[in-house]
Amino acid sequence: MNSRHILVTLALAGTGGLASATVVNQSITEAEVLAAQRGWCQALVDISQTFEKSGQPAAKALAEKVIDGAYGYQMGAVLFKPTLTVAPQTFRTTRAGALAYFVGGDSNFPKDTGFALKGWTKCESKNAAVFIAGDSASTMGNVMITGKDGKVTTVDKTWKFVKDDAGKLRIVLHHSSLPFTGS
Amino acid sequence: MNSRHILVTLALAGTGGLASATVVNQSITEAEVLAAQRGWCQALVDISQTFEKSGQPAAKALAEKVIDGAYGYQMGAVLFKPTLTVAPQTFRTTRAGALAYFVGGDSNFPKDTGFALKGWTKCESKNAAVFIAGDSASTMGNVMITGKDGKVTTVDKTWKFVKDDAGKLRIVLHHSSLPFTGS
Amino acid sequence: MNSRHILVTLALAGTGGLASATVVNQSITEAEVLAAQRGWCQALVDISQTFEKSGQPAAKALAEKVIDGAYGYQMGAVLFKPTLTVAPQTFRTTRAGALAYFVGGDSNFPKDTGFALKGWTKCESKNAAVFIAGDSASTMGNVMITGKDGKVTTVDKTWKFVKDDAGKLRIVLHHSSLPFTGS
Amino acid sequence: MNSRHILVTLALAGTGGLASATVVNQSITEAEVLAAQRGWCQALVDISQTFEKSGQPAAKALAEKVIDGAYGYQMGAVLFKPTLTVAPQTFRTTRAGALAYFVGGDSNFPKDTGFALKGWTKCESKNAAVFIAGDSASTMGNVMITGKDGKVTTVDKTWKFVKDDAGKLRIVLHHSSLPFTGS
Repeated sequence: MNSRHILVTLALAGTGGLASATVVNQSITEAEVLAAQRGWCQALVDISQTFEKSGQPAAKALAEKVIDGAYGYQMGAVLFKPTLTVAPQTFRTTRAGALAYFVGGDSNFPKDTGFALKGWTKCESKNAAVFIAGDSASTMGNVMITGKDGKVTTVDKTWKFVKDDAGKLRIVLHHSSLPFTGS
Repeated sequence: MNSRHILVTLALAGTGGLASATVVNQSITEAEVLAAQRGWCQALVDISQTFEKSGQPAAKALAEKVIDGAYGYQMGAVLFKPTLTVAPQTFRTTRAGALAYFVGGDSNFPKDTGFALKGWTKCESKNAAVFIAGDSASTMGNVMITGKDGKVTTVDKTWKFVKDDAGKLRIVLHHSSLPFTGS
Repeated sequence: MNSRHILVTLALAGTGGLASATVVNQSITEAEVLAAQRGWCQALVDISQTFEKSGQPAAKALAEKVIDGAYGYQMGAVLFKPTLTVAPQTFRTTRAGALAYFVGGDSNFPKDTGFALKGWTKCESKNAAVFIAGDSASTMGNVMITGKDGKVTTVDKTWKFVKDDAGKLRIVLHHSSLPFTGS
Repeated sequence: MNSRHILVTLALAGTGGLASATVVNQSITEAEVLAAQRGWCQALVDISQTFEKSGQPAAKALAEKVIDGAYGYQMGAVLFKPTLTVAPQTFRTTRAGALAYFVGGDSNFPKDTGFALKGWTKCESKNAAVFIAGDSASTMGNVMITGKDGKVTTVDKTWKFVKDDAGKLRIVLHHSSLPFTGS
């Protein structure tokens, strides 16, 4: 058994041989969703700081760990539209495409300069809505990321999470975009 | 919107235009499962009492209401193995088969004498285990029903519930059996 | 029973009393997803054409019908980030917000001029990826819409669909954005 | 990626940079359900044959492998009511309880003599109904098992399966009972 499971054994008075009920609840909670969002934000800052201190190879190694731990690429694909990608490589449904977006350095994705290498110092998520149903939880809202110069970039962001067999939330859908400015 | 939805609007300080998060959570809770089990038990006693007081047609009318409100036959089928059915009509995957089991009087199910008409005065459920995951909640344990003479009949019972669009739990699987006695 | 259910009764030779198996399969199919996407596109063009021919009130009446039939607002909220909304009304988690976006005319959403009233003549969806799992299906890709002047606007679009009790796919998440242009 | 995923890449004519759609479909199919049922039956016969040829320790080792591969005990609990268990140990929500039921030899379950050691030579499943929805598939029907003497024992059986991260169906609910005989 693992962290996936909220397992409760309730003592029931007077049940004779059936003295207790085992309760397993795998539902995704709002607290788990908020923690996963904070984890994504922290990972972005961590990769940026690692790049500053230790260079791209170290940042890349960390990004691989983050992608493997927080996204669901091992499920076959992730529906990932990063903020700054351009056609014909807008959608990053493969792990390689996600990695290239975050840390660059992949000649198969020549326009990628490494979004996570841009010196981010802070990242916060503010949900407009959270929807939990069936086997997934979805969120929509803003993420505010702060650069070295203190300037805050706000993006519109949608995530869908599922819980894997180990009880960990994984991103299976991620659409990020710059706000429409009306011009 | 309806009772399905635990809808919470959280005031978030300092979020400017994004002043609150709408949270919709459709996950099935253990409390909902226990309430549905109590509801099933109460319905069994109610049908019995209605039969005693008002006869089979009234009991049948109530049973139809109970089946339509608590089971999922409108979804196409229910996996229902009642306690006392015999081959070749053991499994009651249709509404008509369930109704015949509970109140009898259907020539298509000639061996049915009406399980819910047997004067039950009390019914209790004791779970060995409750498992909530994805879009369903399943339970396994005993149900103890008390007859007019005070004798308690214990059955082994498994239920699977899903939540319908109106937020109501519905039984989509129900396997009931007399305990094996070792002989 | 309704269109939700792929219900198959298989004749099994030699099974005696258990002569057939009822099969109910509520899984979302890729064909259903593609049909729902085509339906969304057609509705956009239909609202535009209705506006041209019959004016805003008629277009609004049609848009209400489309929203009520194709989105999941009755579930409590929809995670909807339309292409052209601006802060602080970027996210349209309510039915009123969606309607205002499509046909304007709502003083509570003063910047909305009616996206569906812009004379669209054609709409096509091209998926980068489709992911079906559990109780939902998600898609990510481009939607190309053609204006009166023949100019094609391409947007990056993510949808998540669930199947309601009547067997109809409903949009519960919709994130649309103009492509990042690199500038 | 693994066997879980029906992954299809569709060539789409004339889509320019978006030349293909990745389709991942994790829905449980009826064919997978039938294969899992055949697998359970085969495992029962295999354990019996292993016991005949190689004794209880070998049969136990195989049973452990079968339980770990086909049931979901690692998820926290399985709702398992075997055919022949008696109170107060009717329900086998733990791996140890399942193993004791199949091969005996566990002093914590003194009444277990090893259901899978009884010389079964054949096992067949005939469904009354199969219901696939959300993240699970459920079946209800008969299983017919043939003993050394050629005598066939028929049981009423309900299974609920979910798909694990590796794409394998696992039994999370199993209720088996001898048919009510009307006496």
